[in-house]
Amino acid sequence: MLFHVRMNVSLPAGMPADQAAQLKKAEKELAQRLQQEGKWRHLWRIAGQYANISIFDVGSVDELHTLLTSLPLFPYMQIDVMPLCRHPSSIRDNDS
Amino acid sequence: MLFHVRMNVSLPAGMPADQAAQLKKAEKELAQRLQQEGKWRHLWRIAGQYANISIFDVGSVDELHTLLTSLPLFPYMQIDVMPLCRHPSSIRDNDS
Amino acid sequence: MLFHVRMNVSLPAGMPADQAAQLKKAEKELAQRLQQEGKWRHLWRIAGQYANISIFDVGSVDELHTLLTSLPLFPYMQIDVMPLCRHPSSIRDNDS
Amino acid sequence: MLFHVRMNVSLPAGMPADQAAQLKKAEKELAQRLQQEGKWRHLWRIAGQYANISIFDVGSVDELHTLLTSLPLFPYMQIDVMPLCRHPSSIRDNDS
Amino acid sequence: MLFHVRMNVSLPAGMPADQAAQLKKAEKELAQRLQQEGKWRHLWRIAGQYANISIFDVGSVDELHTLLTSLPLFPYMQIDVMPLCRHPSSIRDNDS
Amino acid sequence: MLFHVRMNVSLPAGMPADQAAQLKKAEKELAQRLQQEGKWRHLWRIAGQYANISIFDVGSVDELHTLLTSLPLFPYMQIDVMPLCRHPSSIRDNDS
Amino acid sequence: MLFHVRMNVSLPAGMPADQAAQLKKAEKELAQRLQQEGKWRHLWRIAGQYANISIFDVGSVDELHTLLTSLPLFPYMQIDVMPLCRHPSSIRDNDS
Amino acid sequence: MLFHVRMNVSLPAGMPADQAAQLKKAEKELAQRLQQEGKWRHLWRIAGQYANISIFDVGSVDELHTLLTSLPLFPYMQIDVMPLCRHPSSIRDNDS
Amino acid sequence: MLFHVRMNVSLPAGMPADQAAQLKKAEKELAQRLQQEGKWRHLWRIAGQYANISIFDVGSVDELHTLLTSLPLFPYMQIDVMPLCRHPSSIRDNDS
Amino acid sequence: MLFHVRMNVSLPAGMPADQAAQLKKAEKELAQRLQQEGKWRHLWRIAGQYANISIFDVGSVDELHTLLTSLPLFPYMQIDVMPLCRHPSSIRDNDS
Repeated sequence: MLFHVRMNVSLPAGMPADQAAQLKKAEKELAQRLQQEGKWRHLWRIAGQYANISIFDVGSVDELHTLLTSLPLFPYMQIDVMPLCRHPSSIRDNDS
Repeated sequence: MLFHVRMNVSLPAGMPADQAAQLKKAEKELAQRLQQEGKWRHLWRIAGQYANISIFDVGSVDELHTLLTSLPLFPYMQIDVMPLCRHPSSIRDNDS
Repeated sequence: MLFHVRMNVSLPAGMPADQAAQLKKAEKELAQRLQQEGKWRHLWRIAGQYANISIFDVGSVDELHTLLTSLPLFPYMQIDVMPLCRHPSSIRDNDS
Repeated sequence: MLFHVRMNVSLPAGMPADQAAQLKKAEKELAQRLQQEGKWRHLWRIAGQYANISIFDVGSVDELHTLLTSLPLFPYMQIDVMPLCRHPSSIRDNDS
Repeated sequence: MLFHVRMNVSLPAGMPADQAAQLKKAEKELAQRLQQEGKWRHLWRIAGQYANISIFDVGSVDELHTLLTSLPLFPYMQIDVMPLCRHPSSIRDNDS
Repeated sequence: MLFHVRMNVSLPAGMPADQAAQLKKAEKELAQRLQQEGKWRHLWRIAGQYANISIFDVGSVDELHTLLTSLPLFPYMQIDVMPLCRHPSSIRDNDS
Repeated sequence: MLFHVRMNVSLPAGMPADQAAQLKKAEKELAQRLQQEGKWRHLWRIAGQYANISIFDVGSVDELHTLLTSLPLFPYMQIDVMPLCRHPSSIRDNDS
Repeated sequence: MLFHVRMNVSLPAGMPADQAAQLKKAEKELAQRLQQEGKWRHLWRIAGQYANISIFDVGSVDELHTLLTSLPLFPYMQIDVMPLCRHPSSIRDNDS
Repeated sequence: MLFHVRMNVSLPAGMPADQAAQLKKAEKELAQRLQQEGKWRHLWRIAGQYANISIFDVGSVDELHTLLTSLPLFPYMQIDVMPLCRHPSSIRDNDS
Repeated sequence: MLFHVRMNVSLPAGMPADQAAQLKKAEKELAQRLQQEGKWRHLWRIAGQYANISIFDVGSVDELHTLLTSLPLFPYMQIDVMPLCRHPSSIRDNDS
């Protein structure tokens, strides 16, 4: 099942550069592992913003929530989830 | 270049069923042709709504606008466009 | 899987009373059948509004979308869907 | 009487981990006791958010307010209350 | 129990003057009866608008919904309900 | 003249408990005095929120502003004022 | 007492030109009379919009409401009222 | 040329009382000088808020911006500007 | 003086094609004339929308309003105006 | 390709004046270099705000994002991007 997820990141002004770098590194590693496993199907940057549009492919809403809350940047993100389904005009069976 | 497009469709209450069916058929044909050409990369239905999330892959903003305004349902849609770019944590080169 | 659904109904001012009554009767019958099947788990009226809060329990987002778009009042409703999951403080295993 | 309650939690960035853990533990204990007493009828997590949708079943608005303001996390939550009533199409007498 | 209710009235442009006058007359009669019965405790006009702020005093949410939907102008109003309770600084016991 | 006032209170996270208690005590005393004088006609708590709905009865807008800005919690409140007038369907002459 | 009033005019698409012209003429006459009487102190057009910003100087909220609802264009306007008072830095005693 | 300006002031919670008092004093002096020069034509307090509605009369947008950014409280204000022009129903030539 | 203007066009569903074509033709002619005169400095289409972003260069707000309300499509547009001024980092003297 | 960019700047209250001055100086230098290179085509101040409207002319969305995120003030700005295209009524070929 596909879910459209928008994540807006907002690190506190006073966060030490080291901590921010470490968080981003851990975030990137997990994001890439989840992409390789096929759970995080697409990941795009929104132009001009510290935000992304993602498409997740998971077996259940609980799995989605577990993935999102396991992200190192989760405490610093506003996340909006929108469930998607197959569009009748889509030509790709594996895109839903 | 990728653009995130949300289309909300709203047909007038009084539109004859025939006209609506014809519009939707023409819309579907064009949507599928644009998908086959690779211009309309993804097309998903938003659950519970007569609306979709689409990802377009075009050479320019002008091309995007020309495609969107050529859609038979264009006069009946509210369209919001958001430019996307490659996310540094994405593992797919061909996804941007 | 549970989904929180809010439906706001807005019938066109000019709809004949007969047609409205027939739509509502068909809506009620389907709503009750889906409740008996356990798909539509809860259905509450929002006080003072022609709107409801519903909890659906379905196997997939596609199933949810199929159910919602099969409702006779679907063309006259604005529908917002929010995916839910089990809350760690919930005492009810069968409530998620 | 049923009330639809949405709670969005936002702990201050600087709150010590100990204090946060203690607050959450106390919150969980009270939430579970209120569920066992039948006052807090449903408690669901909103996917991807530190927020919940709850259904309270109380004898009066004053009782609802007393319960909500007694929650240990109350000072850190934004709470929106919406009164519900029985839906004419509901098949469950005990769901209102 | 007290509920704060805001009603915004919007009659269709094409409604015959007779029908509008009759609706308003019936609305006024019911509003005054409900005030005499103590159910509709306060009724104020919002300056410059075809809208009112009302305080209802009812035994349950269901009673409130029944009253509101019985108003002749109900189909032409947008209604927002907010539950109130006694304020700890209020000096009036009978104002809650 | 009546004014509908909504006050949302938001004390800074770091305010010492003593200072908060003192502010609330002074606020309560003034609120009760203004009620006894008939200036602050109604005061209700909005369920689930640190907010109130109030009805003020004053001789002028300047008097209203002077009262509101004299409240000890004024610096910590967001206040919205809406002028009310007599509703033609009201049965109470002294309610306007 | 001064009130800041914003009026947004929206005539129905199908209104005959004659009726519109007559309404506007009557509106202008009343607006000018109220200005001459000093009730309607200022009247400015918002650039690019069929809307105005007005300052009314009236003895009570009821008088304001009576004036506004007597405007020929009242049924076609959205009106927002904001009470004003003397600013402590104002140098004009007669501007409040 | 007239511009409608709304200023909402929000001083940081931690600003020393001395600094706040000095800022307000300087703001008042400049506001009064600009009023005497005819640049700041009207200045009203919005009831219940630390905010004002002002009408500026300046020769150009650049002049307006220079005036607004020279205000001592500028760094602590949210400012919204709306250009005004003569209303065809205004009776005052010198009010535009 | 420069003004940033956003125009959203919305023709009524029932407008005859002839009338729409004539309006658009007249709009185009006037738009091009105003561009040639230097009053309408820039005119861009917003991608995916029947809307534009324009920069006007006029001598006064009144002139701007006169130009905007003379547009044949004015009755069918929502227009938002935002005054611009020279940016201190701009390298172009003739761009303000 | 043209993009309409709005940047709202918000420096933290506690930022030392030195750091702010250095950031603004670096921002100005880069802004002017990008203007000279033709990438940053227009740069206007929004009257009364610490915000600007900019038009960028870039070869791709990725280039736009790289430019925007390289701005020294990027961490302190909210940025909204809107893709533009040639308007059919524009008389300037080089303005798109």
